[in-house]
Amino acid sequence: MKPRKLSLPPGHAYPIDEWRLVETKFYPRLLPQMETLFTTANGYLGIRGCHEEGAPAFQSGTFVNGFYESWPIVYAEEAYGFAKKGQTIVNVADSKIINLYVDDEPFFLSKANVLEYKRTLDMKSGTLDREVLWETAAGKRVLIKSRRFASFEHKHLALISYEVTVLNAAASIVISSKTIIDTAGQFDKSAEDDPRVAKGFEDDILAPNLKEINDKRIILCHTTKNSNIAIASGVDHVFEANSDWSVQGKTSANYGKVVFSAEVESGKPVRLTKFITYYRASGDNRPEDVKDRAERALNRAVTKGFDSLLAAQQELVEDFWARSDVRIEGDPAVQQAIRFNLFQILQASGRVEGNGLPAKGLTGPGYEGHYFWDTEIYVLPFLIYTSPRIAKSLIRFRYSHLDKARKRAREVNQVGALYPWRTIDGDEASAYYAAGTAAYHINADIIHALRKYVEITGDEDFLYSDGAEMLVETARLWNDLGFYSKRKGGRFCINGVTGPDEYNTVVDNNTFTNLMARENLWYAARTLKHIKQNMPDRYQALAYETGLKDAEIEEWQQAADNMYLCYDERLDIHPQDDSFLDKEPWDLENTPIEKYPLLLHYHPLVIYRHQVIKQADVVLALLLLGDEFTHDEKKRNFDYYDRLTTGDSSLSACIQAIMAAELGYRDLAREYSQYALLMDLADIGDNVKDGCHIASMGGTWMVVVYGFAGLRDYDGKIRFNPVTLGRISRVTFPLTIRGSTIQIDIKKESVTYSLIEGEEITVWHGEDEIHLTQAEPVTKRIDHTHGDEVDTQL
Amino acid sequence: MKPRKLSLPPGHAYPIDEWRLVETKFYPRLLPQMETLFTTANGYLGIRGCHEEGAPAFQSGTFVNGFYESWPIVYAEEAYGFAKKGQTIVNVADSKIINLYVDDEPFFLSKANVLEYKRTLDMKSGTLDREVLWETAAGKRVLIKSRRFASFEHKHLALISYEVTVLNAAASIVISSKTIIDTAGQFDKSAEDDPRVAKGFEDDILAPNLKEINDKRIILCHTTKNSNIAIASGVDHVFEANSDWSVQGKTSANYGKVVFSAEVESGKPVRLTKFITYYRASGDNRPEDVKDRAERALNRAVTKGFDSLLAAQQELVEDFWARSDVRIEGDPAVQQAIRFNLFQILQASGRVEGNGLPAKGLTGPGYEGHYFWDTEIYVLPFLIYTSPRIAKSLIRFRYSHLDKARKRAREVNQVGALYPWRTIDGDEASAYYAAGTAAYHINADIIHALRKYVEITGDEDFLYSDGAEMLVETARLWNDLGFYSKRKGGRFCINGVTGPDEYNTVVDNNTFTNLMARENLWYAARTLKHIKQNMPDRYQALAYETGLKDAEIEEWQQAADNMYLCYDERLDIHPQDDSFLDKEPWDLENTPIEKYPLLLHYHPLVIYRHQVIKQADVVLALLLLGDEFTHDEKKRNFDYYDRLTTGDSSLSACIQAIMAAELGYRDLAREYSQYALLMDLADIGDNVKDGCHIASMGGTWMVVVYGFAGLRDYDGKIRFNPVTLGRISRVTFPLTIRGSTIQIDIKKESVTYSLIEGEEITVWHGEDEIHLTQAEPVTKRIDHTHGDEVDTQL
Repeated sequence: MKPRKLSLPPGHAYPIDEWRLVETKFYPRLLPQMETLFTTANGYLGIRGCHEEGAPAFQSGTFVNGFYESWPIVYAEEAYGFAKKGQTIVNVADSKIINLYVDDEPFFLSKANVLEYKRTLDMKSGTLDREVLWETAAGKRVLIKSRRFASFEHKHLALISYEVTVLNAAASIVISSKTIIDTAGQFDKSAEDDPRVAKGFEDDILAPNLKEINDKRIILCHTTKNSNIAIASGVDHVFEANSDWSVQGKTSANYGKVVFSAEVESGKPVRLTKFITYYRASGDNRPEDVKDRAERALNRAVTKGFDSLLAAQQELVEDFWARSDVRIEGDPAVQQAIRFNLFQILQASGRVEGNGLPAKGLTGPGYEGHYFWDTEIYVLPFLIYTSPRIAKSLIRFRYSHLDKARKRAREVNQVGALYPWRTIDGDEASAYYAAGTAAYHINADIIHALRKYVEITGDEDFLYSDGAEMLVETARLWNDLGFYSKRKGGRFCINGVTGPDEYNTVVDNNTFTNLMARENLWYAARTLKHIKQNMPDRYQALAYETGLKDAEIEEWQQAADNMYLCYDERLDIHPQDDSFLDKEPWDLENTPIEKYPLLLHYHPLVIYRHQVIKQADVVLALLLLGDEFTHDEKKRNFDYYDRLTTGDSSLSACIQAIMAAELGYRDLAREYSQYALLMDLADIGDNVKDGCHIASMGGTWMVVVYGFAGLRDYDGKIRFNPVTLGRISRVTFPLTIRGSTIQIDIKKESVTYSLIEGEEITVWHGEDEIHLTQAEPVTKRIDHTHGDEVDTQL
Repeated sequence: MKPRKLSLPPGHAYPIDEWRLVETKFYPRLLPQMETLFTTANGYLGIRGCHEEGAPAFQSGTFVNGFYESWPIVYAEEAYGFAKKGQTIVNVADSKIINLYVDDEPFFLSKANVLEYKRTLDMKSGTLDREVLWETAAGKRVLIKSRRFASFEHKHLALISYEVTVLNAAASIVISSKTIIDTAGQFDKSAEDDPRVAKGFEDDILAPNLKEINDKRIILCHTTKNSNIAIASGVDHVFEANSDWSVQGKTSANYGKVVFSAEVESGKPVRLTKFITYYRASGDNRPEDVKDRAERALNRAVTKGFDSLLAAQQELVEDFWARSDVRIEGDPAVQQAIRFNLFQILQASGRVEGNGLPAKGLTGPGYEGHYFWDTEIYVLPFLIYTSPRIAKSLIRFRYSHLDKARKRAREVNQVGALYPWRTIDGDEASAYYAAGTAAYHINADIIHALRKYVEITGDEDFLYSDGAEMLVETARLWNDLGFYSKRKGGRFCINGVTGPDEYNTVVDNNTFTNLMARENLWYAARTLKHIKQNMPDRYQALAYETGLKDAEIEEWQQAADNMYLCYDERLDIHPQDDSFLDKEPWDLENTPIEKYPLLLHYHPLVIYRHQVIKQADVVLALLLLGDEFTHDEKKRNFDYYDRLTTGDSSLSACIQAIMAAELGYRDLAREYSQYALLMDLADIGDNVKDGCHIASMGGTWMVVVYGFAGLRDYDGKIRFNPVTLGRISRVTFPLTIRGSTIQIDIKKESVTYSLIEGEEITVWHGEDEIHLTQAEPVTKRIDHTHGDEVDTQL
């Protein structure tokens, strides 16, 4: 294991709170990462946690899911089939800006004499709250209270309440509320050599269409120049004051402001409510269309008012916690971290419908706002078990891209469908095929998630309709991609692909890929056979829609049955791929900490020619397809790979933690759990400024549920095998399975399973079958047979 | 062998001529390729064979070796150590333009009523001559005779003589002589997806500095914006007429013209001589400096005059043929093709000193004007044996880049020096590492050429000075790159490299690379031991210059002695690399001809995962290091690889021809010879428009000398093993070896060796030692023991 730097925000300024992320001091140095952590988002829109004043700011990002600009990828050396079109999420109108002037003195955090300061991401109410006590040069004490949220009820809506009270004097107050569009949609350009950072644009990418100012309302419409997507950004205001006030508005194509002036008495607050809306065109919407919808959204919002919308927000967030909360006793810091991670998943997914889930959610522009396999393998388990409706919408989103995946398969000279490694609009956007297009496992990852969704929710209708079509096309791709190799005893081999581990690319018979492809092929064959036998009409329709021939199903079965898996007799492990063991071992012990992540310090060729692993690869297969391995096999493989794994990807620690827990490696499990848990709060990757690691956050939940409670759900059979608790005295969480919600309550020596809602359900505790009814919870002793006690911090 | 399209220019318009390339009809369709073939160049400057009128033209290229613009390579996904700076040869001033007006009617080939037309690349005089008889609308018959050459005597100089005679009437003639700079240096943008075509620039890259017009002389100076290289382009004129004439000049920053007007009598010629010069800055030359030099060059040229300069040209070309000519009896077409190829090498290398030799010479912008391994492996054998001075200058050019190669090694985390795969200024310019940076064999190729140069010329001084420094740094790279692998019995393995075959990239233990690296290491160890023992001062200096430690030499020896070579027991061959045999065979038989070259029709991943070869790889090692293989080994390996080789690279056919000849494959040798010979004249790759394949042209000479005469020169021991002739009755060529020039004269049944010049020398005919003296040639019967008669067209 490589050394890692944990830089938790300092406790004196960020006190632990189980339901809140609290900041009691303004530290400019921490601004970039705090902007990410204090994001308010709802899966459709996201506003980074920048202060209302607009400055100081690291990157005042505001994002709308699926709103992107495309650009031609220019290769200095071109080749056939390379992805042609880049896609980058675009920074939309910055509408959160509210500037305050007291007796003409502007308020800016970095210059103001701040007497009291507190900022809170309230995970119970779903709001970002700030309270600042400012003393002006003239000694006037100004209390500024703001509250902000992205509405889970109305996905196009965000709100800010901004209340100012001069405590000890009368004063002239000006509140200038703005919306500003940087037509270049620029991002941080400071780290051009870091491939994980979005590149931004050189030229303007947003063309202004319409603008309107009407009393206190401003609406600006723009269209991206290449991808041709219109967006309307609107703001409206309600101003409340006990004294005289006046208002004045102004707008240009890329800028609008509404300025409120009031003479206030001592101790009498004024309050501005700012209603913010973004309406992104879908399909052929014209600017006029989105403008009308933005108008309607604002009308509705103003009518309902802040307090009513806030109440709805709190109710929806409460709902979320009821379905999803992981309660921890014995360590408030762990409780806070887990809740923070789950809350960020809510913010990334709550209203994601119709879109994918970007690697960074809507917290930053990292990875260009692209959707990867992160969703399927790391986030969907949580959503399937707690918010199946959202899980379904994300899988359906993949279905909506099936035609593009078919086209992409043709572009790389294959049949069937090949899902893009990274995308927003369904087209492959990876400009580096070795760690992009070559990651064919994306196909199987999507099917793996589909299968888990179907097995856990019982939604077989979906499987037998859209799901079946995805199965046909993905299985076709695998069957076409591989071949029966004489030199491998006639087995079915898949060459020239990249597995999860991006430190070994374009390899032959990547074990993870072959295993996952086999699952994909088997599941496709089984499902299609079932449809054929039991739903002849549906089968006929599928044959019509996909040109499916009966013989194909047999071919998939045969390919899967004959799938080659490389095996090393001497080490008794599955090599990561055919050539992995032939590489020179990397001297991790003597690689100084500042050389991590390796990808920022070594040429890819240097990395590729060494035995060194970026992230769990075979080890991930041990978890996802754990029923295909014995305990000893898992142990041998884990032992071999774990010491070669740098964890340079944030997708690694959670998986390593779960497998370490299963195998009884107490210290390892604790350490990896901690890394997964604190990936963002402690900025382990030193790049939280670019956004949260949503996949790792999903992985945190997996660490609790799969690692700690030992859930395994192969074939939809729910089995727990909890590890004994260390420092923590109790862990409780709910799971929703085929419509029933159960609760798992783990204590030091025992675990209690109870059915909270829905029909009776059977689960397993180790080898014990448990039939759960509403009547009686079942308590079991925790079994120690599978290894040492795991003293995890969880 | 894949099917190939031979599209020889039609015989009725391009009659065979042993010393000329003749065009008797103007075919617009053939214009792009003929511009390439009719290039006049001298290794320093090159003018494509466009017509003086400037239109019609496909790409009016004029190039000065080493004059390039650099540009930042932008990767849509960046990685550590990727080459940062692109380099592209720049199209300089088009100074050949001469527009003719007779009674105000302009002459353009595409519109004119042409009664007679003939264009000749005269390979004996080194000139491009054109004679056109044009009938104007008024029925005046105008004879236009022009002659053009790039001077081998004065490398900065090109000349055009342009003579006009109105045969049947008096007329008003205007001759407008121009020089035009396209500041964007643009190339053909029609084939943006073809990686072999230069990309060109979007914006202006040439900034104007100085301009001057003085009587009939114009000089324009420009500097490239990024690479900051100044160039002066000058023209001067001498006009001769028997009647009154006047002249008028005009210039702007990027344009100059001198217009001559004359009233001519019937049958009385007027003649314009245009002196053209290009002076590229080297080092820190300022525009003023290059302008002064251009002035001096023009002064000198005008003083000498066209006829005197032409006489010198003819003398130097005659010299070249005396050293280099390959005479063929029995097939004038073959004679023409060979001479054409050798003449193009002369044009690419004659005055190359101080520069490298671009893949396309100076005939077109293909491959951005970069220098590759082409020079060392394909062109240097010819130059070493015929123009050792030029060969030395090219090797010394690599020495001049040693510091940059040291820097590049650091960039890819290695010690020693790594020569760039493609470059103009010594920095790596490959934007595609898999078929660029990964081609580490470039190091060994350069050393292989160094060794051949030393062994054939006897220039050991060079070896023990600059050569030794190159040896130290290249050996260090290999020693650092590889490692001793336990899994390969403790042998020295080199992983993650790309061999000559670019259809299999980033592989482990590429046989060619390991063999060549071994030669490099052995040669370095041997040479450095020799220096240490015999030249202690030199050794001390080297140790000072390179930090060499004695122990390193032992390490190189050990690495070479333990070099791993993969071997397949079942097939009894050297697999191309560790994983080559595990790939799925490509179905070449059922791949339609229009799918070649594969690289333009299949995604790299598709190509990489198949057993398919772009160009000779193991087979090239069988030639370069043939003394390390038995005849049977060669046969088995050749048999295996030949059928998998598409020859999609022009570097392949010549090597396959030579090995087929050695192994007695009569039909194959004939076919491959023909492809190599006609690569450009028959536009086999369908890309002659972008420039000549200079390496393949060098390969043609190798086909004659190594293939046909069976020369092998391992360790400097000169052994011939001629194959019997087929259709051709006689082949004669000279070789210069350690200062002596011998002639090889092959007839049907016998071969005669004679010493033409220099000291006595020993060569071998098969196993027979021959001591050649000036007194008596030695004749030997041709031996048939090594295979069938090879009925090559040569």
